[in-house]
Amino acid sequence: MKEFLAQAKASTQIIATLDGKTKNIILNEMADALLENTKAIVNANVKDMEAGKRANLDTALLDRLLLDEGRVEAMANSLREIAVLKEPVGRVLEGWVNDDNLRIEKVSVPIGVVGVIYESRPNVTSDVAGLCFKSGNVAILKGGKEAEHSNRAIAKVLQEVLVKNKLPKEIISLLPDATREGVAKLIKEDEYVDLIVPRGGEALIRFISKNSSVPVVKHDKGLCHTYIHRDASHIKALSIAVNAKCQRPGVCNAMETLLLDKEIARVLLPGLYKAFVDAGTKLKGCNVTREFIFVEPATEVDYNTEYLANILNIKVVSGIEEAIAHIGKYGSGHSEAIITENYSAAEKFMNAVDAACVYVNASTRFTDGGVFGFGAEVGISTNKLHARGPMGINELTTYKFKIYGNGQIR
Amino acid sequence: MKEFLAQAKASTQIIATLDGKTKNIILNEMADALLENTKAIVNANVKDMEAGKRANLDTALLDRLLLDEGRVEAMANSLREIAVLKEPVGRVLEGWVNDDNLRIEKVSVPIGVVGVIYESRPNVTSDVAGLCFKSGNVAILKGGKEAEHSNRAIAKVLQEVLVKNKLPKEIISLLPDATREGVAKLIKEDEYVDLIVPRGGEALIRFISKNSSVPVVKHDKGLCHTYIHRDASHIKALSIAVNAKCQRPGVCNAMETLLLDKEIARVLLPGLYKAFVDAGTKLKGCNVTREFIFVEPATEVDYNTEYLANILNIKVVSGIEEAIAHIGKYGSGHSEAIITENYSAAEKFMNAVDAACVYVNASTRFTDGGVFGFGAEVGISTNKLHARGPMGINELTTYKFKIYGNGQIR
Repeated sequence: MKEFLAQAKASTQIIATLDGKTKNIILNEMADALLENTKAIVNANVKDMEAGKRANLDTALLDRLLLDEGRVEAMANSLREIAVLKEPVGRVLEGWVNDDNLRIEKVSVPIGVVGVIYESRPNVTSDVAGLCFKSGNVAILKGGKEAEHSNRAIAKVLQEVLVKNKLPKEIISLLPDATREGVAKLIKEDEYVDLIVPRGGEALIRFISKNSSVPVVKHDKGLCHTYIHRDASHIKALSIAVNAKCQRPGVCNAMETLLLDKEIARVLLPGLYKAFVDAGTKLKGCNVTREFIFVEPATEVDYNTEYLANILNIKVVSGIEEAIAHIGKYGSGHSEAIITENYSAAEKFMNAVDAACVYVNASTRFTDGGVFGFGAEVGISTNKLHARGPMGINELTTYKFKIYGNGQIR
Repeated sequence: MKEFLAQAKASTQIIATLDGKTKNIILNEMADALLENTKAIVNANVKDMEAGKRANLDTALLDRLLLDEGRVEAMANSLREIAVLKEPVGRVLEGWVNDDNLRIEKVSVPIGVVGVIYESRPNVTSDVAGLCFKSGNVAILKGGKEAEHSNRAIAKVLQEVLVKNKLPKEIISLLPDATREGVAKLIKEDEYVDLIVPRGGEALIRFISKNSSVPVVKHDKGLCHTYIHRDASHIKALSIAVNAKCQRPGVCNAMETLLLDKEIARVLLPGLYKAFVDAGTKLKGCNVTREFIFVEPATEVDYNTEYLANILNIKVVSGIEEAIAHIGKYGSGHSEAIITENYSAAEKFMNAVDAACVYVNASTRFTDGGVFGFGAEVGISTNKLHARGPMGINELTTYKFKIYGNGQIR
């Protein structure tokens, strides 16, 4: 392990200073190589699929695991899309001349060695490898055990392209010990590893956050709310609420609890009820809600649950203060929305709610690197530091200060 | 502890949304209150000083511990200087309209609860409290045990001003359990604490980095180098080298090892030797160095030592590659300099050396928040993420995305 990590660390110098044009050529070569090796990748995937079926993985998981010709082609296209992103390294973030006539530039640089830990989808292997490569980082990848053969086949193809270009294959590699113990070791190696990005189940993320001595940017749960204020446009409220819950319930930026101002509960609840029932949503409600519509009671546990399914809690609140307090207590700091035509209410909500993304009059479903215009997305950070919210390729860089003098001493 | 932390966390809402004018008035009131309570603070400090003398603390430590009328006045002035800094909260860092006609703003916001762990100087208590307050954060302070009475007296004065202004006193407080065990507990409370800033000895920082589940921005050691390239101006080289080592040898941005290009070793070493001996520097050298000047041998241990004293290693290197490799191996990623008139050598060094601050033709001593123009300095981060290098008050903020819509759904 130490030897592997030392080699990974040593490779940072080489990838960090590689010019953008060369990196983009190599990314396109990687895309070509994935296509050329489609058969080998699909064959490796067959082994994973067979093992998965033997292990009785559910169909949703098996679907995520599957690689066919089309999916390999999509992986290749992702790499080509990463290639056309604007060069993330060497951006001058700020620049000034100080009182000593030193010219100071704050310049983006790669982070170094980035460990990414993820679950079943094998396409993440090439996506993350491409993003790390483009941003000048060495990638150590640890995918799901169930995708082991697929990930190995993909990494092999990418490494062959590196070697063909006389680059160390350690620039992109799979964690050699892909067990839980291997991960436990990796996250303690702060001398060699500069960042850990865990994308996966809550238990995994909690384990890594608690035990890592390497900085962690986590891609944690989204327990998102929409608050319909008393001065909301009813039409906007209805369409945004349904969209936030139902357009894709299984993702982190979908709404889990709808907060409804008591002044408009009586007027809005019947329409909301009909719209959600039509959309197949299973509704739960607080006691006040249940005075108006016939739904199951929502419990404390429900308010704390990221359903990732077409289930919604409805809670009637006395006003904006209670809405903000509820979000403060149950929210995961991901995406929160207020629907209102009231200027002061909107301002208050946007300032007081502590979340990566706060919305007025729009669906929380927009929290996404692609939608924000960042291009390929590394993830959606629920950290407060380094990167918060949608992470684009620029969030895989840090900065250094370059100071240009002409003999200055202090 | 939990109850204390819960109250600290609950106070974040209040301080985070306090307007700049009010914060600045309160900072000036705190400065007034420190002056009014000079006698009580100095009396408390007398107790610490007496205990320190009984415990045979060395004179340098006792000097750092001492508070007299002048030093209390300096603390008050620091708070007034913090008050005039530009408001760090609510800066629009970026803003754009996306394809969905959503107006997206990336806006600076406070981090939340910040724990700062530091050593003997009691003035740090009011400095850090002021910086956290101005940036809208709740501060939990843990000073050195030897400064306990002084820190309590200072915190009491600041808290009285908070209470007078109807603010919770938890906005600025000392860690109730100021033992090592208390710190060990604090750094595991990621539910309540958003950032830990350790400023202190290497052992403390290592302990915190290894064990904290809260993100850490560390103020670690500075093992800094100056490389005199073969095309250096000899006059600049000499004056920068002496300045980097001798102007204040006890600080983190002072040079510990001078790297000298072999092409100019013979010409420069006698002059360097004389200048350093005149400045009272104890020199150590590699074997090649010792062919030209009479100094002790520099060992592997020496190259790894942050002397914080007027001692310097001199190593002759074959060229820029070896200089960069040496810095990669022994440097702490703090501040590194090249002295050269050669454009390509300067560019190569500035790009390849992985440090918070890289210099061409200037002394590493300039790495400082004040010198950079940031105003009061929180510290110099040796982290790569969130904040790197000199940390001003802006580095005590993070960001959120505010998204303004008019009914958009996905």
